[in-house]
Amino acid sequence: MKVVAAIDSFKGSATSAELNQAVLSVFSDQWETRSIPIADGGEGSMAAVIAALGGNYETVSVTAPLGGKLQARMLVTKIKEEKIALIESAEVIGLQLVEPSDETTRNSSSFGLGQMVLAACRQGVKKIYLTLGGSGTSDGGVGFLLALGATIQRNERMENNPLLQAESLALSQLNPLLAQIDLFALADVTNPYFGNQGFAQVFGPQKGASQETIQQLDQQAKRLAEHIKRTTGIDLEVPGAGAAGGLGGAVRLAGGQLVPGFATIASLVGFEEKIKGADLLITGEGRIDGQTAGGKVPYGVALLAHKHQVPVVAICGSRSDDLGKLPQLLSAVFCIQQGPISLTEAMEKKRTLVNAQQAAQAIAGFVEQWQKKTESDT
Amino acid sequence: MKVVAAIDSFKGSATSAELNQAVLSVFSDQWETRSIPIADGGEGSMAAVIAALGGNYETVSVTAPLGGKLQARMLVTKIKEEKIALIESAEVIGLQLVEPSDETTRNSSSFGLGQMVLAACRQGVKKIYLTLGGSGTSDGGVGFLLALGATIQRNERMENNPLLQAESLALSQLNPLLAQIDLFALADVTNPYFGNQGFAQVFGPQKGASQETIQQLDQQAKRLAEHIKRTTGIDLEVPGAGAAGGLGGAVRLAGGQLVPGFATIASLVGFEEKIKGADLLITGEGRIDGQTAGGKVPYGVALLAHKHQVPVVAICGSRSDDLGKLPQLLSAVFCIQQGPISLTEAMEKKRTLVNAQQAAQAIAGFVEQWQKKTESDT
Repeated sequence: MKVVAAIDSFKGSATSAELNQAVLSVFSDQWETRSIPIADGGEGSMAAVIAALGGNYETVSVTAPLGGKLQARMLVTKIKEEKIALIESAEVIGLQLVEPSDETTRNSSSFGLGQMVLAACRQGVKKIYLTLGGSGTSDGGVGFLLALGATIQRNERMENNPLLQAESLALSQLNPLLAQIDLFALADVTNPYFGNQGFAQVFGPQKGASQETIQQLDQQAKRLAEHIKRTTGIDLEVPGAGAAGGLGGAVRLAGGQLVPGFATIASLVGFEEKIKGADLLITGEGRIDGQTAGGKVPYGVALLAHKHQVPVVAICGSRSDDLGKLPQLLSAVFCIQQGPISLTEAMEKKRTLVNAQQAAQAIAGFVEQWQKKTESDT
Repeated sequence: MKVVAAIDSFKGSATSAELNQAVLSVFSDQWETRSIPIADGGEGSMAAVIAALGGNYETVSVTAPLGGKLQARMLVTKIKEEKIALIESAEVIGLQLVEPSDETTRNSSSFGLGQMVLAACRQGVKKIYLTLGGSGTSDGGVGFLLALGATIQRNERMENNPLLQAESLALSQLNPLLAQIDLFALADVTNPYFGNQGFAQVFGPQKGASQETIQQLDQQAKRLAEHIKRTTGIDLEVPGAGAAGGLGGAVRLAGGQLVPGFATIASLVGFEEKIKGADLLITGEGRIDGQTAGGKVPYGVALLAHKHQVPVVAICGSRSDDLGKLPQLLSAVFCIQQGPISLTEAMEKKRTLVNAQQAAQAIAGFVEQWQKKTESDT
């Protein structure tokens, strides 16, 4: 019997590799166990890929979102002899680097992320994978494009969010290094660049922006999108352009494309090959809710498990009453809490791993009985 | 496929029948479902037996533990044409009727429970089953015996706990009705009548007794036990005599015997017959911990499930990290909490039943996948 664990990190509690190990530790010697550290394009993406492919973290000095210098890592590795880089946007422009407030929204820029992409180009990679999850900027990706050689006409505003300053945007001087690589941005949100589903209106509030700032950002995003459409024909009124404060759109302007997060990471780590022939697959995520079926790890894992006819269960730290469309695909969702507990205590790493172990013990204890029954029935 | 639910009540939250129903409701039409309300001789014992055998609740007016009148129920029913009664001690002398304090410990008496037994005798029953769980008295069962016709020599103490007053105990005038019935007391605790494992020292503190009261009660218990041994030859220095504040010993003095709680209820409800041929058995209890293997419902159910080779899982509201010997028999213990939650919220009936349903959904979702896999493997 073979059991595979591929649990997304529980953000703020434990990594994918730690959770996999805790869960697999309870299976008896009659089981072959395999851990596949996994991510969906959010936190833990580099860890998942380096676990599968090896490689090196390269540290690059870039401009921090609010100015000043920041040392940020990217992963450089090889896939079938081809050199690639994986950059987690959150390492450069993450929400954890920008205290959410109106002021930080009006002053933060994704410039450093463009520098990071150029640094990867200079490493001689052929492909760059850029995860967009967890970003803290709302500059429409204009900072990112400026670092890559784009130019803007500036108005008189003094704030450092370049979207607020940009009257127009020109792409003619983009760095020629970009033409030598394929740029893939991992994103699962489907928001367009502007409008009532655009990044300013949907994500502005959680980044601390005031209503006035949100309106200004949205107006500017619309102005730039219309200008770009007129001058280049590229349409930013498409799903995903509003990912990561507009970086989704900016990536398209830089010649890149948007790809789904989980499927891309799964492909990089050779996920399907590794689960073939497994008897049980354990996945999971810190929170499982109505959003999970929108491309999160448990959903993606369950799709592939079904394709290969492997029974799949998910564990979580909490679940909502309504799981949306998830149960049609995956109804075996076990919460790891072992009794009433506060959020703070539940999120402690040690408690999380012990709870995950106990939940896995119950699952293993059940499977072993069921297996014995099946054998005695036949 | 046939699934049986036999979950003990979650005390203060939901009954056995409610939990069984919640859990069974998630199984698809391909499953035959059966609910067996169950108990281990604690709360819910009458409900379990009436669900299986039918019968009537008879209300009897008895003396309350602290004096005054109390209307209490007993169950009168038939098993194979033989009339029997089931009395839950907690209905007459339960902890919920006696605010725990030193004063209440010094003044409460199990007299009403003796009256209840006599009332059952007068109903013409052949057997009386008396559950000892959840009692609030610490009178060594002296009150119970007084109601049945025993007599004591009193000292000068004025408190109403007759154990404090009794200088000696005589059984010669016990009511002759007792000779016409078999009396079974359901108890799983193994404490003797007195000493450092006796009822006063072990259970006195949780009933609010002061150290002085505990010592007085223990000395009196020892005095009576020695007196009884001299005069009747009956030894109270045996396991179980300390159950329910000494009622275990008193039942022996009244000619009754101690029997294990779960096994007795299981026998009354025809449990084994009902689980034969089941494919899955779901049991559970509000709290599963190191005590569970000491005769609680999940342990008893798991023993019988193994005997009949039925896979068994347990659900609970909370579990301890260390389950003692339980996992050797039953390792599939699933906690129903679906995320961080306060004890108060977790204990709400509606929340408890929804959580139980979600846990069952995960179990059912898993079994159905595993079954499909088994079918495609063979």
